[in-house]
Amino acid sequence: MAGQIIDLSRGMPPVKAFPTGDLIQCGEAALRRDPNVLLQYGRSHGYAHLREWLGQQHGVGPDQILIGNSSLEIFSFITQTELKPGDRAFVEAPSYDRAVTLLRRAGAEVVGIPLEEDGLSLMVLEDELRKGVPALIYLISDFNNPMGVTTSLEKRTQLVALAEEYDFWIVDDAPYRALRYLGQDVPTFLSLSPTRVLHMSSFSKVLAPGLRLGYVAGPTDKIASLAEWAVDTYIGPVLPTQGMVYEYCRRGLLPSNLERLKDLYLPRLQATLSALENQLSQASWSKPEGGFYVGLTLPQGNTIANLLARAGEAGLKLSDGRGFFSSPVDGNRFLRIPFCSVTPEDMEEAISRLVRIL
Amino acid sequence: MAGQIIDLSRGMPPVKAFPTGDLIQCGEAALRRDPNVLLQYGRSHGYAHLREWLGQQHGVGPDQILIGNSSLEIFSFITQTELKPGDRAFVEAPSYDRAVTLLRRAGAEVVGIPLEEDGLSLMVLEDELRKGVPALIYLISDFNNPMGVTTSLEKRTQLVALAEEYDFWIVDDAPYRALRYLGQDVPTFLSLSPTRVLHMSSFSKVLAPGLRLGYVAGPTDKIASLAEWAVDTYIGPVLPTQGMVYEYCRRGLLPSNLERLKDLYLPRLQATLSALENQLSQASWSKPEGGFYVGLTLPQGNTIANLLARAGEAGLKLSDGRGFFSSPVDGNRFLRIPFCSVTPEDMEEAISRLVRIL
Repeated sequence: MAGQIIDLSRGMPPVKAFPTGDLIQCGEAALRRDPNVLLQYGRSHGYAHLREWLGQQHGVGPDQILIGNSSLEIFSFITQTELKPGDRAFVEAPSYDRAVTLLRRAGAEVVGIPLEEDGLSLMVLEDELRKGVPALIYLISDFNNPMGVTTSLEKRTQLVALAEEYDFWIVDDAPYRALRYLGQDVPTFLSLSPTRVLHMSSFSKVLAPGLRLGYVAGPTDKIASLAEWAVDTYIGPVLPTQGMVYEYCRRGLLPSNLERLKDLYLPRLQATLSALENQLSQASWSKPEGGFYVGLTLPQGNTIANLLARAGEAGLKLSDGRGFFSSPVDGNRFLRIPFCSVTPEDMEEAISRLVRIL
Repeated sequence: MAGQIIDLSRGMPPVKAFPTGDLIQCGEAALRRDPNVLLQYGRSHGYAHLREWLGQQHGVGPDQILIGNSSLEIFSFITQTELKPGDRAFVEAPSYDRAVTLLRRAGAEVVGIPLEEDGLSLMVLEDELRKGVPALIYLISDFNNPMGVTTSLEKRTQLVALAEEYDFWIVDDAPYRALRYLGQDVPTFLSLSPTRVLHMSSFSKVLAPGLRLGYVAGPTDKIASLAEWAVDTYIGPVLPTQGMVYEYCRRGLLPSNLERLKDLYLPRLQATLSALENQLSQASWSKPEGGFYVGLTLPQGNTIANLLARAGEAGLKLSDGRGFFSSPVDGNRFLRIPFCSVTPEDMEEAISRLVRIL
């Protein structure tokens, strides 16, 4: 083990997280039952049965659901339909680097709002709102990537009030939401403000990323305009995998898979937190209650650049924390720890290697 | 039958064209053999085994292949990476309406070059080249949608020479190429000019459109830049369906499926051509040797607008031929006949209904 590289660079679920056998069975059953729909051209909104099922989960109608080939790509549709070049877009700092890339691709001026323990800083947000109202704010309100932080109900309520007052959209990216290992669910932004929120999620973290199956729930007219963009882009999303996932959900297999995943990930989270506590108490880090990541701020005097330079010699693969900040310098001491993909034993070892090169 | 509406509006394969049983088996077998790759995050280039297989078909390396969720979406990547707003883009007139939409979305000035029986008019093309060189020309050189016309070898050779002289890209969209019912294959643009051509194709017409599985073959550096665009858009294309298609190809099932499809479509093409000959000899139409479409020019004194207005009463569903022309007025007398989706008996009836409302 000492010789093997431990990879802390990517937030990939381990392959044992995939319910492979059930997915194979469900893929076959779906194609046997509905081949002429799943193999034919379909609507850009996605597979009707799965839309209906997803709508039920969110208490909305199927016409409020659009399915796509990953929620990331759905976000690219949102950036292309909702943003004009030069528009402002707010994100948490830190936030998901790929989302920031898409905002910039659409010509947005991306403004990072510092993330606190209970969500972004409303003080900074209000300052920025006075400087210029964004077209949208992009949040990962449950177990943020890369920090693991969850936005409190209080801040959600205040954010919704600000969105209404200043007239901007809240895009809430919630792929980790179902993976809560501790504590209680906080109401979604969508439930707090159905007319002002686009709620995105995906099956990458709860089933398998290779499916590339994401969706967005929101107001009917927004969903319709995203569907129009989608039809011009690819006619419709890939269907057989939608059939597979619908069959999986229809059979009621998702809840027990979530329990299995929680049993897999909770010990990994706990091992990470206790390894940090025991070995690196001079640093500070987030205390997530779910998701895939712990966000670590290196002790004073260290930089992620130095750490990256020495990671190889210590047998670690790390990602550059600066990549998660719209203003990279703010991430000079930031390291994302994707505990999802590392066993408790390996994490213990990984943190001790980290300590060695600090 | 007389009462039933006959749909000539969309080029969808009939469901009996899908090799459903084999696809189900192959999907299952692929996931059993390679679950940890097909269910995990993958590269934006697509599934390595399928890239290799596709490369072999085209005599190129796997690094010259990018797989995507439909060739249409790959074309959207091409328009976004290759075109700046204001750039010119040439298309056949008529051409695939969705491709033209994507060119316009990217800000291109779309110029239609009239299609003749053996490909586009080189005289008009050279005129337009002198007015301004395009970033690319988009062609459906085998059994064009909506005309069914195939570009002759002579014109292909001349086009390649012009592309080299004037320095523009040829994007050749070839989803119908394998569906040749009569005559001989013409060499692909890719084989004539490997450094200057992006060859797109898909499995929609030879297996099933619901798979949304397309690809592009071209120079390594272009494929790499498309892959970079793709990774920022959706990380990677949907994997389990790529596994399914690879398994299908690996087992050698494609050639016999193509024979089955040719047996299905040739009588439909023949019925269409003879119904036109027998019932509508005052019109003119293309004589395709493959693909899905016959292009019909209505007799003098008729317009597609009048025809559309009366289609319902005759029990026909038609598409607006003007939609296939970058300058819609050029399609005032144009009707696309998608013979692929209509039985010989229904086509006989459809043409007689058409005659009734002319």
